Amino acid sequence: MTGDLNHSPDPGPARRGRGRRPAEQVRREILDAAGEILLAEGMAAFTIERVAARSGASKVTLYKWWPSKGALALDGYTHAVTEQLAFPDTGDIEADLRDQLRSFVAVLRGPAGRAVAELVGQAQTDPELAAAFRAVYSGPRRALAVEALTRARQRGQIRADVDPEIVVDQLWGAGYHRLLIPDQPLTIDFTDALVRNLMSGIRVGAGEPA
Amino acid sequence: MTGDLNHSPDPGPARRGRGRRPAEQVRREILDAAGEILLAEGMAAFTIERVAARSGASKVTLYKWWPSKGALALDGYTHAVTEQLAFPDTGDIEADLRDQLRSFVAVLRGPAGRAVAELVGQAQTDPELAAAFRAVYSGPRRALAVEALTRARQRGQIRADVDPEIVVDQLWGAGYHRLLIPDQPLTIDFTDALVRNLMSGIRVGAGEPA
Repeated sequence: MTGDLNHSPDPGPARRGRGRRPAEQVRREILDAAGEILLAEGMAAFTIERVAARSGASKVTLYKWWPSKGALALDGYTHAVTEQLAFPDTGDIEADLRDQLRSFVAVLRGPAGRAVAELVGQAQTDPELAAAFRAVYSGPRRALAVEALTRARQRGQIRADVDPEIVVDQLWGAGYHRLLIPDQPLTIDFTDALVRNLMSGIRVGAGEPA
Repeated sequence: MTGDLNHSPDPGPARRGRGRRPAEQVRREILDAAGEILLAEGMAAFTIERVAARSGASKVTLYKWWPSKGALALDGYTHAVTEQLAFPDTGDIEADLRDQLRSFVAVLRGPAGRAVAELVGQAQTDPELAAAFRAVYSGPRRALAVEALTRARQRGQIRADVDPEIVVDQLWGAGYHRLLIPDQPLTIDFTDALVRNLMSGIRVGAGEPA
Protein backbone atom coordinates (compact mmCIF):
# COMPACT_ATOMS: atom_id res chain seq x y z
CA MET A 1 0.00 0.00 0.00
CA THR A 2 2.68 2.50 0.96
CA GLY A 3 4.61 1.55 -2.20
CA ASP A 4 1.50 2.39 -4.22
CA LEU A 5 1.23 5.76 -2.51
CA ASN A 6 4.74 6.67 -3.71
CA HIS A 7 3.55 6.43 -7.30
CA SER A 8 0.14 7.89 -6.73
CA PRO A 9 -0.44 10.82 -4.39
CA ASP A 10 -4.22 10.32 -4.74
CA PRO A 11 -4.75 6.64 -3.96
CA GLY A 12 -8.57 6.77 -4.06
CA PRO A 13 -9.03 7.37 -7.79
CA ALA A 14 -5.94 5.30 -8.63
CA ARG A 15 -7.31 2.31 -6.75
CA ARG A 16 -10.69 2.74 -8.45
CA GLY A 17 -8.90 3.02 -11.76
CA ARG A 18 -6.87 -0.15 -11.20
CA GLY A 19 -10.01 -1.94 -10.07
CA ARG A 20 -11.90 -0.94 -13.19
CA ARG A 21 -9.28 -1.10 -15.86
CA PRO A 22 -9.27 -4.84 -16.49
CA ALA A 23 -13.04 -5.00 -17.04
CA GLU A 24 -12.93 -1.99 -19.35
CA GLN A 25 -10.02 -3.48 -21.20
CA VAL A 26 -11.73 -6.85 -21.52
CA ARG A 27 -14.85 -5.12 -22.79
CA ARG A 28 -12.84 -3.17 -25.37
CA GLU A 29 -11.06 -6.32 -26.52
CA ILE A 30 -14.36 -8.15 -26.85
CA LEU A 31 -15.80 -5.28 -28.90
CA ASP A 32 -12.65 -5.12 -31.05
CA ALA A 33 -13.00 -8.86 -31.73
CA ALA A 34 -16.75 -8.61 -32.40
CA GLY A 35 -16.28 -5.70 -34.82
CA GLU A 36 -13.42 -7.45 -36.64
CA ILE A 37 -15.34 -10.71 -37.14
CA LEU A 38 -18.50 -8.90 -38.22
CA LEU A 39 -16.77 -6.62 -40.71
CA ALA A 40 -14.50 -9.31 -42.13
CA GLU A 41 -16.97 -12.19 -42.41
CA GLY A 42 -20.51 -10.91 -41.88
CA MET A 43 -23.36 -12.04 -39.65
CA ALA A 44 -23.36 -15.64 -40.93
CA ALA A 45 -19.92 -16.22 -39.36
CA PHE A 46 -20.61 -14.22 -36.21
CA THR A 47 -21.00 -16.34 -33.04
CA ILE A 48 -20.48 -15.73 -29.31
CA GLU A 49 -17.99 -18.62 -29.38
CA ARG A 50 -15.80 -17.01 -32.03
CA VAL A 51 -15.82 -13.63 -30.28
CA ALA A 52 -14.83 -15.37 -27.02
CA ALA A 53 -12.01 -17.27 -28.72
CA ARG A 54 -10.67 -14.22 -30.56
CA SER A 55 -10.84 -11.88 -27.55
CA GLY A 56 -9.62 -14.41 -24.97
CA ALA A 57 -12.65 -13.64 -22.79
CA SER A 58 -14.83 -16.39 -21.35
CA LYS A 59 -18.23 -17.14 -22.83
CA VAL A 60 -19.64 -16.64 -19.31
CA THR A 61 -18.42 -13.03 -19.39
CA LEU A 62 -19.92 -12.45 -22.83
CA TYR A 63 -23.28 -13.91 -21.84
CA LYS A 64 -23.19 -11.85 -18.62
CA TRP A 65 -22.62 -8.57 -20.47
CA TRP A 66 -24.67 -9.09 -23.65
CA PRO A 67 -28.19 -10.56 -23.62
CA SER A 68 -27.89 -11.99 -27.15
CA LYS A 69 -25.60 -12.51 -30.10
CA GLY A 70 -27.43 -9.71 -31.89
CA ALA A 71 -26.80 -7.23 -29.07
CA LEU A 72 -23.08 -8.11 -29.11
CA ALA A 73 -22.91 -7.80 -32.91
CA LEU A 74 -24.56 -4.38 -32.69
CA ASP A 75 -22.18 -3.21 -29.97
CA GLY A 76 -19.23 -4.51 -32.00
CA TYR A 77 -20.49 -2.71 -35.10
CA THR A 78 -21.07 0.54 -33.21
CA HIS A 79 -17.60 0.27 -31.62
CA ALA A 80 -16.02 -0.26 -35.06
CA VAL A 81 -17.64 2.70 -36.84
CA THR A 82 -18.26 5.34 -34.16
CA GLU A 83 -14.95 7.15 -34.62
CA GLN A 84 -15.42 7.39 -38.41
CA LEU A 85 -18.97 8.68 -37.88
CA ALA A 86 -18.14 11.50 -35.46
CA PHE A 87 -20.44 14.49 -35.97
CA PRO A 88 -18.57 17.71 -36.74
CA ASP A 89 -19.86 20.93 -35.17
CA THR A 90 -18.22 23.90 -36.92
CA GLY A 91 -21.30 26.12 -36.67
CA ASP A 92 -22.05 25.74 -40.41
CA ILE A 93 -24.74 23.07 -40.65
CA GLU A 94 -24.50 22.61 -44.42
CA ALA A 95 -20.74 21.96 -44.26
CA ASP A 96 -21.18 19.70 -41.21
CA LEU A 97 -23.91 17.64 -42.88
CA ARG A 98 -21.86 17.31 -46.05
CA ASP A 99 -18.79 16.15 -44.11
CA GLN A 100 -20.68 13.71 -41.92
CA LEU A 101 -22.59 12.22 -44.85
CA ARG A 102 -19.36 11.75 -46.81
CA SER A 103 -17.96 9.77 -43.86
CA PHE A 104 -21.22 7.82 -43.56
CA VAL A 105 -21.13 6.80 -47.23
CA ALA A 106 -17.43 5.91 -46.95
CA VAL A 107 -18.39 3.54 -44.11
CA LEU A 108 -21.31 2.05 -46.07
CA ARG A 109 -19.09 1.46 -49.12
CA GLY A 110 -16.66 -0.59 -47.02
CA PRO A 111 -17.10 -3.93 -45.21
CA ALA A 112 -19.22 -2.20 -42.56
CA GLY A 113 -21.86 -1.54 -45.24
CA ARG A 114 -22.34 -5.23 -45.90
CA ALA A 115 -22.44 -5.93 -42.14
CA VAL A 116 -25.06 -3.29 -41.39
CA ALA A 117 -27.14 -4.36 -44.41
CA GLU A 118 -27.16 -7.92 -43.04
CA LEU A 119 -28.07 -6.68 -39.55
CA VAL A 120 -30.96 -4.57 -40.87
CA GLY A 121 -31.98 -7.44 -43.16
CA GLN A 122 -32.03 -10.01 -40.36
CA ALA A 123 -33.83 -7.54 -38.07
CA GLN A 124 -36.86 -7.70 -40.39
CA THR A 125 -37.65 -11.20 -39.12
CA ASP A 126 -35.87 -11.06 -35.72
CA PRO A 127 -37.68 -8.69 -33.31
CA GLU A 128 -34.96 -9.03 -30.64
CA LEU A 129 -32.25 -7.96 -33.08
CA ALA A 130 -34.50 -5.16 -34.36
CA ALA A 131 -34.93 -3.83 -30.81
CA ALA A 132 -31.17 -4.08 -30.16
CA PHE A 133 -30.40 -2.28 -33.43
CA ARG A 134 -32.64 0.62 -32.50
CA ALA A 135 -31.46 0.79 -28.87
CA VAL A 136 -27.72 0.41 -29.49
CA TYR A 137 -27.18 1.90 -32.92
CA SER A 138 -29.86 3.68 -34.95
CA GLY A 139 -31.57 5.44 -32.04
CA PRO A 140 -28.38 7.04 -30.65
CA ARG A 141 -27.12 7.90 -34.18
CA ARG A 142 -30.47 9.53 -35.00
CA ALA A 143 -30.32 11.49 -31.73
CA LEU A 144 -26.87 12.89 -32.62
CA ALA A 145 -28.11 14.09 -35.99
CA VAL A 146 -31.28 15.58 -34.49
CA GLU A 147 -29.17 17.44 -31.91
CA ALA A 148 -26.96 18.90 -34.64
CA LEU A 149 -30.00 19.96 -36.69
CA THR A 150 -31.70 21.41 -33.62
CA ARG A 151 -28.60 23.49 -32.83
CA ALA A 152 -28.65 24.73 -36.44
CA ARG A 153 -32.31 25.66 -36.08
CA GLN A 154 -31.49 27.58 -32.90
CA ARG A 155 -28.71 29.39 -34.80
CA GLY A 156 -31.26 30.37 -37.46
CA GLN A 157 -29.78 28.18 -40.21
CA ILE A 158 -32.81 25.89 -40.55
CA ARG A 159 -36.43 27.05 -40.65
CA ALA A 160 -38.36 26.75 -37.38
CA ASP A 161 -41.16 24.72 -39.03
CA VAL A 162 -38.80 21.94 -40.20
CA ASP A 163 -38.82 18.71 -38.15
CA PRO A 164 -35.21 17.49 -37.74
CA GLU A 165 -36.45 13.88 -37.44
CA ILE A 166 -37.67 14.02 -41.05
CA VAL A 167 -34.42 15.53 -42.29
CA VAL A 168 -32.65 12.45 -40.86
CA ASP A 169 -34.74 10.21 -43.13
CA GLN A 170 -34.06 12.42 -46.17
CA LEU A 171 -30.28 12.37 -45.67
CA TRP A 172 -29.13 9.20 -43.88
CA GLY A 173 -32.32 7.32 -44.78
CA ALA A 174 -31.70 8.08 -48.45
CA GLY A 175 -28.24 6.53 -48.00
CA TYR A 176 -29.65 3.38 -46.38
CA HIS A 177 -32.09 3.16 -49.29
CA ARG A 178 -29.21 2.91 -51.79
CA LEU A 179 -27.43 0.43 -49.50
CA LEU A 180 -30.42 -1.89 -49.04
CA ILE A 181 -32.06 -1.52 -52.49
CA PRO A 182 -29.04 -0.84 -54.70
CA ASP A 183 -30.72 0.40 -57.87
CA GLN A 184 -28.31 3.36 -57.89
CA PRO A 185 -24.75 3.70 -56.53
CA LEU A 186 -23.68 5.17 -53.18
CA THR A 187 -21.22 7.90 -54.14
CA ILE A 188 -19.81 11.11 -52.71
CA ASP A 189 -21.63 13.06 -55.46
CA PHE A 190 -24.86 11.45 -54.25
CA THR A 191 -24.37 12.55 -50.64
CA ASP A 192 -23.40 16.08 -51.65
CA ALA A 193 -26.58 16.29 -53.76
CA LEU A 194 -28.70 15.02 -50.83
CA VAL A 195 -27.57 17.99 -48.73
CA ARG A 196 -27.86 20.46 -51.61
CA ASN A 197 -31.38 19.32 -52.58
CA LEU A 198 -32.64 19.54 -49.06
CA MET A 199 -30.95 22.79 -48.09
CA SER A 200 -31.96 24.56 -51.29
CA GLY A 201 -35.18 22.78 -52.13
CA ILE A 202 -35.78 21.45 -55.62
CA ARG A 203 -38.51 23.78 -56.80
CA VAL A 204 -37.68 26.29 -59.53
CA GLY A 205 -37.05 29.61 -57.81
CA ALA A 206 -36.60 27.99 -54.37
CA GLY A 207 -33.00 29.20 -54.39
CA GLU A 208 -29.98 28.02 -56.34
CA PRO A 209 -27.55 25.52 -54.85
CA ALA A 210 -24.87 27.15 -52.71
CA MET B 1 -66.12 -23.23 -87.30
CA THR B 2 -69.18 -21.81 -89.09
CA GLY B 3 -70.97 -21.68 -85.72
CA ASP B 4 -68.11 -19.68 -84.28
CA LEU B 5 -68.24 -17.29 -87.20
CA ASN B 6 -71.89 -16.48 -86.34
CA HIS B 7 -70.72 -15.16 -82.99
CA SER B 8 -67.50 -13.64 -84.21
CA PRO B 9 -67.32 -11.89 -87.59
CA ASP B 10 -63.52 -11.66 -87.23
CA PRO B 11 -62.39 -15.20 -86.46
CA GLY B 12 -58.64 -14.47 -86.57
CA PRO B 13 -58.39 -12.24 -83.47
CA ALA B 14 -61.20 -14.19 -81.76
CA ARG B 15 -59.26 -17.42 -82.19
CA ARG B 16 -56.08 -15.75 -80.94
CA GLY B 17 -58.06 -14.34 -78.00
CA ARG B 18 -59.53 -17.71 -77.10
CA GLY B 19 -56.15 -19.33 -77.45
CA ARG B 20 -54.48 -16.80 -75.11
CA ARG B 21 -57.11 -16.17 -72.51
CA PRO B 22 -56.60 -19.30 -70.45
CA ALA B 23 -52.86 -18.69 -70.01
CA GLU B 24 -53.44 -15.05 -69.06
CA GLN B 25 -56.17 -16.08 -66.68
CA VAL B 26 -54.01 -18.78 -65.11
CA ARG B 27 -51.20 -16.27 -64.73
CA ARG B 28 -53.53 -13.77 -63.06
CA GLU B 29 -54.89 -16.46 -60.73
CA ILE B 30 -51.36 -17.51 -59.80
CA LEU B 31 -50.38 -13.91 -59.07
CA ASP B 32 -53.58 -13.37 -57.06
CA ALA B 33 -52.75 -16.44 -54.97
CA ALA B 34 -49.08 -15.45 -54.56
CA GLY B 35 -50.01 -11.93 -53.45
CA GLU B 36 -52.64 -13.21 -51.01
CA ILE B 37 -50.33 -15.72 -49.33
CA LEU B 38 -47.47 -13.21 -49.14
CA LEU B 39 -49.56 -10.40 -47.67
CA ALA B 40 -51.47 -12.63 -45.25
CA GLU B 41 -48.63 -14.79 -43.96
CA GLY B 42 -45.29 -13.33 -45.05
CA MET B 43 -42.26 -14.85 -46.76
CA ALA B 44 -41.81 -17.63 -44.17
CA ALA B 45 -45.07 -19.24 -45.29
CA PHE B 46 -44.57 -18.56 -48.99
CA THR B 47 -43.82 -21.65 -51.11
CA ILE B 48 -44.31 -22.62 -54.76
CA GLU B 49 -46.39 -25.58 -53.52
CA ARG B 50 -48.85 -23.37 -51.63
CA VAL B 51 -49.25 -20.97 -54.54
CA ALA B 52 -49.89 -23.96 -56.85
CA ALA B 53 -52.48 -25.41 -54.47
CA ARG B 54 -54.28 -22.11 -53.92
CA SER B 55 -54.34 -21.12 -57.61
CA GLY B 56 -55.14 -24.59 -58.95
CA ALA B 57 -52.19 -24.33 -61.35
CA SER B 58 -49.62 -27.10 -61.67
CA LYS B 59 -46.18 -26.75 -60.11
CA VAL B 60 -44.77 -27.47 -63.59
CA THR B 61 -46.48 -24.32 -64.88
CA LEU B 62 -45.16 -22.24 -62.00
CA TYR B 63 -41.60 -23.48 -62.43
CA LYS B 64 -41.89 -22.87 -66.19
CA TRP B 65 -42.94 -19.26 -65.75
CA TRP B 66 -40.92 -18.20 -62.69
CA PRO B 67 -37.24 -19.05 -62.23
CA SER B 68 -37.45 -19.03 -58.42
CA LYS B 69 -39.72 -18.69 -55.42
CA GLY B 70 -38.35 -15.17 -54.92
CA ALA B 71 -39.23 -14.10 -58.44
CA LEU B 72 -42.79 -15.40 -57.97
CA ALA B 73 -43.12 -13.65 -54.59
CA LEU B 74 -41.94 -10.40 -56.14
CA ASP B 75 -44.37 -10.72 -59.06
CA GLY B 76 -47.17 -11.52 -56.59
CA TYR B 77 -46.26 -8.50 -54.46
CA THR B 78 -46.08 -6.19 -57.49
CA HIS B 79 -49.43 -7.54 -58.77
CA ALA B 80 -51.01 -6.91 -55.34
CA VAL B 81 -49.86 -3.30 -54.89
CA THR B 82 -49.53 -1.84 -58.40
CA GLU B 83 -53.06 -0.47 -58.59
CA GLN B 84 -52.73 1.30 -55.21
CA LEU B 85 -49.38 2.75 -56.28
CA ALA B 86 -50.52 4.27 -59.60
CA PHE B 87 -48.65 7.52 -60.33
CA PRO B 88 -50.98 10.48 -60.81
CA ASP B 89 -50.12 13.00 -63.54
CA THR B 90 -52.18 16.16 -63.05
CA GLY B 91 -49.44 18.52 -64.23
CA ASP B 92 -48.73 19.71 -60.65
CA ILE B 93 -45.69 17.75 -59.47
CA GLU B 94 -45.99 18.75 -55.81
CA ALA B 95 -49.62 17.57 -55.60
CA ASP B 96 -48.80 14.41 -57.55
CA LEU B 97 -45.86 13.54 -55.29
CA ARG B 98 -47.92 14.19 -52.17
CA ASP B 99 -50.76 11.96 -53.44
CA GLN B 100 -48.49 9.15 -54.57
CA LEU B 101 -46.47 9.18 -51.33
CA ARG B 102 -49.65 9.06 -49.25
CA SER B 103 -50.69 5.93 -51.16
CA PHE B 104 -47.19 4.49 -50.77
CA VAL B 105 -47.24 4.97 -47.01
CA ALA B 106 -50.77 3.55 -46.81
CA VAL B 107 -49.43 0.41 -48.53
CA LEU B 108 -46.38 0.22 -46.23
CA ARG B 109 -48.58 0.56 -43.13
CA GLY B 110 -50.66 -2.46 -44.20
CA PRO B 111 -49.71 -6.14 -44.58
CA ALA B 112 -47.77 -5.30 -47.76
CA GLY B 113 -45.34 -3.30 -45.62
CA ARG B 114 -44.37 -6.36 -43.59
CA ALA B 115 -44.08 -8.43 -46.78
CA VAL B 116 -41.82 -5.95 -48.57
CA ALA B 117 -39.70 -5.47 -45.43
CA GLU B 118 -39.15 -9.24 -45.31
CA LEU B 119 -38.32 -9.34 -49.03
CA VAL B 120 -35.79 -6.52 -48.71
CA GLY B 121 -34.45 -8.11 -45.52
CA GLN B 122 -33.97 -11.52 -47.11
CA ALA B 123 -32.46 -9.90 -50.22
CA GLN B 124 -29.49 -8.74 -48.10
CA THR B 125 -28.20 -12.33 -47.94
CA ASP B 126 -29.89 -13.76 -51.08
CA PRO B 127 -28.36 -12.28 -54.25
CA GLU B 128 -30.92 -13.99 -56.50
CA LEU B 129 -33.82 -12.44 -54.59
CA ALA B 130 -32.02 -9.09 -54.57
CA ALA B 131 -31.68 -9.20 -58.36
CA ALA B 132 -35.35 -10.20 -58.76
CA PHE B 133 -36.44 -7.38 -56.43
CA ARG B 134 -34.60 -4.81 -58.48
CA ALA B 135 -35.69 -6.22 -61.85
CA VAL B 136 -39.35 -6.85 -61.03
CA TYR B 137 -40.19 -4.22 -58.44
CA SER B 138 -37.84 -1.45 -57.33
CA GLY B 139 -36.29 -0.73 -60.74
CA PRO B 140 -39.63 -0.26 -62.56
CA ARG B 141 -41.10 1.72 -59.61
CA ARG B 142 -38.03 4.00 -59.59
CA ALA B 143 -38.36 4.48 -63.35
CA LEU B 144 -42.00 5.63 -62.98
CA ALA B 145 -41.02 8.22 -60.37
CA VAL B 146 -38.04 9.43 -62.42
CA GLU B 147 -40.31 9.81 -65.46
CA ALA B 148 -42.79 11.92 -63.47
CA LEU B 149 -39.98 14.09 -62.06
CA THR B 150 -38.40 14.46 -65.50
CA ARG B 151 -41.73 15.61 -66.96
CA ALA B 152 -41.96 18.16 -64.12
CA ARG B 153 -38.45 19.35 -64.91
CA GLN B 154 -39.43 19.77 -68.57
CA ARG B 155 -42.50 21.76 -67.45
CA GLY B 156 -40.17 24.05 -65.46
CA GLN B 157 -41.41 22.91 -62.00
CA ILE B 158 -38.10 21.39 -60.89
CA ARG B 159 -34.68 22.96 -61.36
CA ALA B 160 -32.65 21.69 -64.32
CA ASP B 161 -29.65 20.86 -62.08
CA VAL B 162 -31.63 18.46 -59.84
CA ASP B 163 -31.10 14.73 -60.48
CA PRO B 164 -34.50 12.96 -60.29
CA GLU B 165 -32.77 9.74 -59.19
CA ILE B 166 -31.68 11.42 -55.95
CA VAL B 167 -35.14 12.84 -55.30
CA VAL B 168 -36.44 9.24 -55.38
CA ASP B 169 -34.11 8.36 -52.47
CA GLN B 170 -35.17 11.47 -50.51
CA LEU B 171 -38.91 10.70 -50.85
CA TRP B 172 -39.57 6.96 -51.23
CA GLY B 173 -36.17 6.02 -49.77
CA ALA B 174 -36.99 8.05 -46.66
CA GLY B 175 -40.20 6.01 -46.38
CA TYR B 176 -38.31 2.70 -46.70
CA HIS B 177 -35.94 3.96 -43.99
CA ARG B 178 -38.83 4.30 -41.51
CA LEU B 179 -40.20 0.91 -42.61
CA LEU B 180 -36.92 -0.97 -42.22
CA ILE B 181 -35.44 0.94 -39.24
CA PRO B 182 -38.59 1.99 -37.37
CA ASP B 183 -37.18 4.60 -34.98
CA GLN B 184 -39.96 6.97 -36.04
CA PRO B 185 -43.49 6.26 -37.33
CA LEU B 186 -44.66 6.15 -40.95
CA THR B 187 -47.50 8.67 -41.06
CA ILE B 188 -49.30 10.85 -43.59
CA ASP B 189 -47.83 13.94 -41.87
CA PHE B 190 -44.39 12.44 -42.44
CA THR B 191 -44.92 11.98 -46.19
CA ASP B 192 -46.39 15.46 -46.59
CA ALA B 193 -43.34 16.90 -44.82
CA LEU B 194 -40.98 14.91 -47.08
CA VAL B 195 -42.44 16.64 -50.13
CA ARG B 196 -42.57 20.05 -48.43
CA ASN B 197 -38.96 19.86 -47.19
CA LEU B 198 -37.64 18.88 -50.57
CA MET B 199 -39.74 21.24 -52.67
CA SER B 200 -39.08 24.23 -50.42
CA GLY B 201 -35.65 23.38 -49.04
CA ILE B 202 -34.97 23.61 -45.34
CA ARG B 203 -32.61 26.55 -45.28
CA VAL B 204 -33.87 29.78 -43.71
CA GLY B 205 -34.90 32.05 -46.57
CA ALA B 206 -35.04 29.17 -49.08
CA GLY B 207 -38.76 29.80 -49.48
CA GLU B 208 -41.64 29.08 -47.16
CA PRO B 209 -43.72 25.90 -47.57
CA ALA B 210 -46.51 26.24 -50.12
